[in-house]
Amino acid sequence: MADLIQPRTLKGFRDYPPELMIPRERLLEQARRVYRSYGFAPIDTPALEYTEILLGKGGEESDKIIYRFKDHGDRDVALRFDLTVPFARFAAMYVPKMGTPFKRYHLGPVWRGENTGQGRYREFWQCDFDTIGTTSNAADIEVVLVIHDLMHALEVERFTIHVNNRLVLNGVLEELGLAGKTKAVLIALDKLPKLGRDVVSAEMSEKAALSPEQAEKLLNLAQTQGTNSEILERLTLDFGGNAKAAEGIRRLKELLEATATAGVDPSIVKLDVAIARGLDYYTGTIYETFLADLPGIGSVCSGGRYDNLARQFTKQELPGVGASLGLDRLLTALEELKLLQSAGTPAPVLVLQFSADKLGEYQKMARGLRAAGVGVEVYPEAKKIGAQLQYAEKRGHRFALIAGPDEFAQGVWKIKDLAKREEKTVMDSQVKEQLRALLS
Amino acid sequence: MADLIQPRTLKGFRDYPPELMIPRERLLEQARRVYRSYGFAPIDTPALEYTEILLGKGGEESDKIIYRFKDHGDRDVALRFDLTVPFARFAAMYVPKMGTPFKRYHLGPVWRGENTGQGRYREFWQCDFDTIGTTSNAADIEVVLVIHDLMHALEVERFTIHVNNRLVLNGVLEELGLAGKTKAVLIALDKLPKLGRDVVSAEMSEKAALSPEQAEKLLNLAQTQGTNSEILERLTLDFGGNAKAAEGIRRLKELLEATATAGVDPSIVKLDVAIARGLDYYTGTIYETFLADLPGIGSVCSGGRYDNLARQFTKQELPGVGASLGLDRLLTALEELKLLQSAGTPAPVLVLQFSADKLGEYQKMARGLRAAGVGVEVYPEAKKIGAQLQYAEKRGHRFALIAGPDEFAQGVWKIKDLAKREEKTVMDSQVKEQLRALLS
Repeated sequence: MADLIQPRTLKGFRDYPPELMIPRERLLEQARRVYRSYGFAPIDTPALEYTEILLGKGGEESDKIIYRFKDHGDRDVALRFDLTVPFARFAAMYVPKMGTPFKRYHLGPVWRGENTGQGRYREFWQCDFDTIGTTSNAADIEVVLVIHDLMHALEVERFTIHVNNRLVLNGVLEELGLAGKTKAVLIALDKLPKLGRDVVSAEMSEKAALSPEQAEKLLNLAQTQGTNSEILERLTLDFGGNAKAAEGIRRLKELLEATATAGVDPSIVKLDVAIARGLDYYTGTIYETFLADLPGIGSVCSGGRYDNLARQFTKQELPGVGASLGLDRLLTALEELKLLQSAGTPAPVLVLQFSADKLGEYQKMARGLRAAGVGVEVYPEAKKIGAQLQYAEKRGHRFALIAGPDEFAQGVWKIKDLAKREEKTVMDSQVKEQLRALLS
Repeated sequence: MADLIQPRTLKGFRDYPPELMIPRERLLEQARRVYRSYGFAPIDTPALEYTEILLGKGGEESDKIIYRFKDHGDRDVALRFDLTVPFARFAAMYVPKMGTPFKRYHLGPVWRGENTGQGRYREFWQCDFDTIGTTSNAADIEVVLVIHDLMHALEVERFTIHVNNRLVLNGVLEELGLAGKTKAVLIALDKLPKLGRDVVSAEMSEKAALSPEQAEKLLNLAQTQGTNSEILERLTLDFGGNAKAAEGIRRLKELLEATATAGVDPSIVKLDVAIARGLDYYTGTIYETFLADLPGIGSVCSGGRYDNLARQFTKQELPGVGASLGLDRLLTALEELKLLQSAGTPAPVLVLQFSADKLGEYQKMARGLRAAGVGVEVYPEAKKIGAQLQYAEKRGHRFALIAGPDEFAQGVWKIKDLAKREEKTVMDSQVKEQLRALLS
């Protein structure tokens, strides 16, 4: 016999045994269901692309972490590191034929050869949805509704969707003649909560040559506090004179009004001028989603509006707006909030095999239950009943169905509640109804 | 502006636009639902593995087609070329803790750098389900039930599941002292339908040194015809004296009886001694599934029983049985059989945007319908109604909902059937009920 090969996975990669995969599949399914209910259509793209398609689209950092190699035909190929760049390529190829607006979602793994640790993996899933080909605020408003429905579908009750609009900051910078200094300003503003106004004002003066008045205006913007109405009023008063800022304020106001009319509890949507999400990519509405019971975990669904998706691949301008569900972060959160039912099996019922010659009968009962929507496993061997019950407990089945010669003679089945360790005997014809009641 | 990069995919790889992805997702969802209903639990494993894990497990052919490269840490890594080898590694690592029997399904992409053409792609999905850790025939019998339910879930009515058992052939070869000549014998037998008994008999004599009597026995086995009962009778008469063959016959008989008792139409399960599925891997029951209306497309769901899944990785013996759904082949078949409803959108209803200031109202109506399980898209711009209706037709929406100032004043909506080009006006409160009736 040849030597055994040590079974192991690569660093930064992981297996998903059933206990991890069952909640994962449930979450992906809910995301698909909600995205589809809004008319977002699924697409998929290859894991491998020509390297030139992927390079330089996510900045130097992305280029370094790309898994890149020569394929059998000596092509320079690479594994996708996100779903946005493949979508840009896809859009350039298909939108001319499909037309706009185009709404798509894309769920799939991406690969990044970066340092691991702090819950970072080299293979992880992204769950993006976007509407491209329109600048209409209707698409921005819908993003809030989608996130809202997604959280509800996952039975997360306490969450807030923070919204902002980059047009406000951009307008103010433009008005102050600082349009080219966005990056330095954002880096300084980012330190405000920790270091306070004076230090940040000094840094703005030093690093970006801002006057005290310019710094004052920006600090006022960043520190706007209050209810949504109060913030809107404050922003209008301070910056409404600039056309860009005014447009940003108008869009935010319309978003808050339309989501409320549509039926979303207004306390869930929070105007938050402090969120910016990255430096260069987003140009309009910005979204972050926080769990009230786990704010420290960060945003579980984030996104924003951008001016042009596919400028590297086509001359057609494709403005769009979208967001991405943080699958792994959300799973961690749901686990901490005890909103995950973890089991080793997707089937709540195990039919025990008492008499091997009755296998057809066991499967007949199981088939009837499956047709009624109840997942049922049949134990494959006529082992001792105790061993079969142990298996059921280990896997996480909730009920066992038992019938031996006596039961078959009487036309009855025993239903055993595995958590309560109680059993009752019911007529053959009643099993389906009883189990459905017990499971609901 | 920098030069544009030509948007394109690699040879052998493809994008899935909505028209292809919607039916694909539906099929994957049905597969998950059916697998789960039997207690098969989902797992996932990384796309990338240490090359030594994958090498040599699928024969020399597999080794040549593996996508293999050095990662950032100079590790020799490769993309998985099937889901079986990763499952073997997974089982070696987890089964000691999880115990047996272990039932898993795994849906995911695999990569093979082989010649393209004839519908062959370098990236494609596999959809495997297996029960490991038991030799019980109950697991073999269940495979038939799973395939049966899967076909029904996909609304394929006319199909047959062909079953055989390699023990019968192995037993006969053993009895004839030809156990080491399985390969040569199978290669020759494979030519029987085309070249006839005499030629095959001659080849058996020439290539494998079989006597005319030995060849006669094997040819009789391969040409056994008749109803399931007749074939069983014939096999028992001819080969029942050999212990292995007798066990194979017993298991086939039990499988036919138990599936019938469980409620599967017996005419769907066909004993077929001509199927062997590869030379070395399978050791017991073998399955192939043919569509009565498209036999030429080949088997759409195939599998079998094997002796030991993970011998390269562990000393623990893991016998098992399973099958794999041919996703792409089945999609092609369903398309030919017109069982695929193809559309560019998963939402059957489009709410037109007549008045931009009523966006909240449009989304309010849409949210009510979504909560009732109806997919509803809201058009993002207040374009001309004609243009919005054109969009609906292009995407494949079935109904449009329209309300302007007059309708809002009266508390009514227009429902337009886009295929029939008919519209009717209904009360606000009746829209949900009416649409559900129209869609069902």
